[in-house]
Amino acid sequence: MTVHSDRSQRRRVVIVGAGFGGLWAVKRLKGAAVDIVLIDQRNHHLFQPLLYQVATASLAPSEVAWPIRSMLHDRKDVTTILGTVVGVDAAGRTVRLADGSAVAYDTLILATGARHGYFGHDEWEAVAPGLKTIEDTTAIRSRILLAFEEAEREADPARLKALLTFVIVGGGPTGVELAGTIADLARDTLPRDFRAIDTRETRVLLVEAGPKVLNGYPDSLSAYAKRALEKLGVEVRLNAPVTQIERRAVTLGGQRVAAHTVIWAAGVRASPAAEWLGAPADRNGRIVVEPDLSVPGHPDIFAVGDTIAVARPNGAPVPGIAPAAKQEGAFVAETIRRRLAGDPERRAFRYRHEGSLAQIGKGKAVIDFGWLKLRGAVAWWLWGLAHIYFLVGVRSRLSVALNWLWIYTRNQRGARLITQADDKPPVD
Amino acid sequence: MTVHSDRSQRRRVVIVGAGFGGLWAVKRLKGAAVDIVLIDQRNHHLFQPLLYQVATASLAPSEVAWPIRSMLHDRKDVTTILGTVVGVDAAGRTVRLADGSAVAYDTLILATGARHGYFGHDEWEAVAPGLKTIEDTTAIRSRILLAFEEAEREADPARLKALLTFVIVGGGPTGVELAGTIADLARDTLPRDFRAIDTRETRVLLVEAGPKVLNGYPDSLSAYAKRALEKLGVEVRLNAPVTQIERRAVTLGGQRVAAHTVIWAAGVRASPAAEWLGAPADRNGRIVVEPDLSVPGHPDIFAVGDTIAVARPNGAPVPGIAPAAKQEGAFVAETIRRRLAGDPERRAFRYRHEGSLAQIGKGKAVIDFGWLKLRGAVAWWLWGLAHIYFLVGVRSRLSVALNWLWIYTRNQRGARLITQADDKPPVD
Repeated sequence: MTVHSDRSQRRRVVIVGAGFGGLWAVKRLKGAAVDIVLIDQRNHHLFQPLLYQVATASLAPSEVAWPIRSMLHDRKDVTTILGTVVGVDAAGRTVRLADGSAVAYDTLILATGARHGYFGHDEWEAVAPGLKTIEDTTAIRSRILLAFEEAEREADPARLKALLTFVIVGGGPTGVELAGTIADLARDTLPRDFRAIDTRETRVLLVEAGPKVLNGYPDSLSAYAKRALEKLGVEVRLNAPVTQIERRAVTLGGQRVAAHTVIWAAGVRASPAAEWLGAPADRNGRIVVEPDLSVPGHPDIFAVGDTIAVARPNGAPVPGIAPAAKQEGAFVAETIRRRLAGDPERRAFRYRHEGSLAQIGKGKAVIDFGWLKLRGAVAWWLWGLAHIYFLVGVRSRLSVALNWLWIYTRNQRGARLITQADDKPPVD
Repeated sequence: MTVHSDRSQRRRVVIVGAGFGGLWAVKRLKGAAVDIVLIDQRNHHLFQPLLYQVATASLAPSEVAWPIRSMLHDRKDVTTILGTVVGVDAAGRTVRLADGSAVAYDTLILATGARHGYFGHDEWEAVAPGLKTIEDTTAIRSRILLAFEEAEREADPARLKALLTFVIVGGGPTGVELAGTIADLARDTLPRDFRAIDTRETRVLLVEAGPKVLNGYPDSLSAYAKRALEKLGVEVRLNAPVTQIERRAVTLGGQRVAAHTVIWAAGVRASPAAEWLGAPADRNGRIVVEPDLSVPGHPDIFAVGDTIAVARPNGAPVPGIAPAAKQEGAFVAETIRRRLAGDPERRAFRYRHEGSLAQIGKGKAVIDFGWLKLRGAVAWWLWGLAHIYFLVGVRSRLSVALNWLWIYTRNQRGARLITQADDKPPVD
């Protein structure tokens, strides 16, 4: 099936990817004289900043993911397609889907995001998975919970120690949040539930190749985050590039650490959008876009979010975070509206940094608004309120607030499920 | 590793399975002079009566499943093991686990439940899955939601019709509840979200080999349930045994119906506990136990729940429902307590039927307490309150109540996620 664009009708904007970038483009195109086709390979929009909370059994998948169709049900100008885009025919103005069909566009927005990047060590993915999808995340949740289950029955001291060792590679926000929350889980939630092991002896290592955690934050907040993590019992290893990851072991700074569970939070690799167009890309596969976020040589194709590399006026890269993707999506929508209104000027995207927030552990966070730096309990409450505000819908907000209240007051985590991909039981 | 029972210490009761039967045995053994080892192949207790709500995107898995360890954290007399039992050595008084270890017992309670049974047609399982585990259920949820997604893009009328046809095999409570809830989903929740299809044209067939739905209920309630389902648009086919299930087609009463989605709710097959012991079993593999629920020839091995066949004094079988399993678990616990107190009398289990409840669709249910029969809206509210009461913990109760409130008032179902076992996207 080929969906043709009827030129006698309104112009068609095709948006590939319903993450923050794609969805904010849809939002800002509301009321514009265009028909929108939104294509995603998943049926849900995912609130990636809280995925680590699913991995650590704090939230359920359906609390951080919402059906795209349902979010847009009142937008009669939007058609949602569940499908996997595998290429773009720029000459014919169509995107090709894996099922053989094609969708025609007048204007195309590529918001296809990124996956984990292993800096050329793709073999590490099997032993050090990362968090990008619901499936990634429930698999990591099962790994973490199974490690404690196996430890409970392990008699050999060396194997027991490895089972209770968790290594998080990458000291950015995701790494910090994962390390802190695993420490919380082991210290506060699990101890009463086990008989043979003391889960408070769990070793959590946060490994960072650079000189500080939360790179991009002010040094004072990075230093505070490191101290706060250490207070939770997390060992923070700075300037410690990982040189090898095997099954159940990580080598960092020449030292081999036996660890049953290794989680990757170190790098991303953009989706293959650059390859589809033969567009210039940086070493992480991100399209190096024009200042107006169009793809070089393709004024009707824009790209936003984690799939692009774009610099701020001071030369620093725009960070790969949700607010940047939202701004880019909204900016492209405005450009399309201006073009429809007959304004051909190609304005340059300007990123406004709204602030950086990271949770460290229960009751501790850091916030950098530039003009205001916060840390500790106040920052944590603000972090919580901000994230509840950003969730989609009243039900999700109430539900997440309820879960966080239970964790805060009772250390109970509601989503401690070990599930398995196939029909096999998790242990055999 | 072999866990030996130290005879100088307290007697050890090993319970295999943490469903309703096993868990109620644990509850009633509280304070008894025994050490309890509870073995399950999952880390969670599952509230099976509401699994169909997960399959129909109404509830999240973590709202109907709770970590066993966490439920029993204050029971220092209980050790929980995540492991798969593969056999019993009755002479040596040990159970064997799949990992090669063994656990010694003085008294054994087998509460290993059941899976779907296909009456000799095991090849039907792949095309007509049933609901017994979280994984079964999220897979069926994905199937149901994907059928609508594919329909949205289908141009061929015959294929479109098959995509929007859902066949539920089996008119018991699970079949009735599934059929009614899929009808609700298609009629109330989805219509606004799709553009090319009208989901209200969805065809739901409930197929029952016998002469009525809700076998075991009074005829008046069965007749009401049938009418209520038909009012929701469900086609109820009685006296229509299924003779063939292929990929995307079901043959019933000689007629072949093209259906993309077929769900099995017709029969169960007991776990292999009878085989482990060479015990007498009925045609569904259920152990035919002694009146005191012990396994014939093994006075120290009891079996409870869906893994046994036991009759009521009037000869009717005890139904395979949660209250029966709970009563059996509690009864065996009492027997063990009496034996410890030196009372060797082998009393007979007597089942007390507390009532039958089934939801038909939003706002409609049937309840039979024997002395009181209810149907319609009043029954539905009672059904909802009863199920919220039976859930584990205040957080789950609030969370489920919140979800049901949203479905009732806004037709929004919060857990509409298509997820996939492996790393592949759901569509390619």
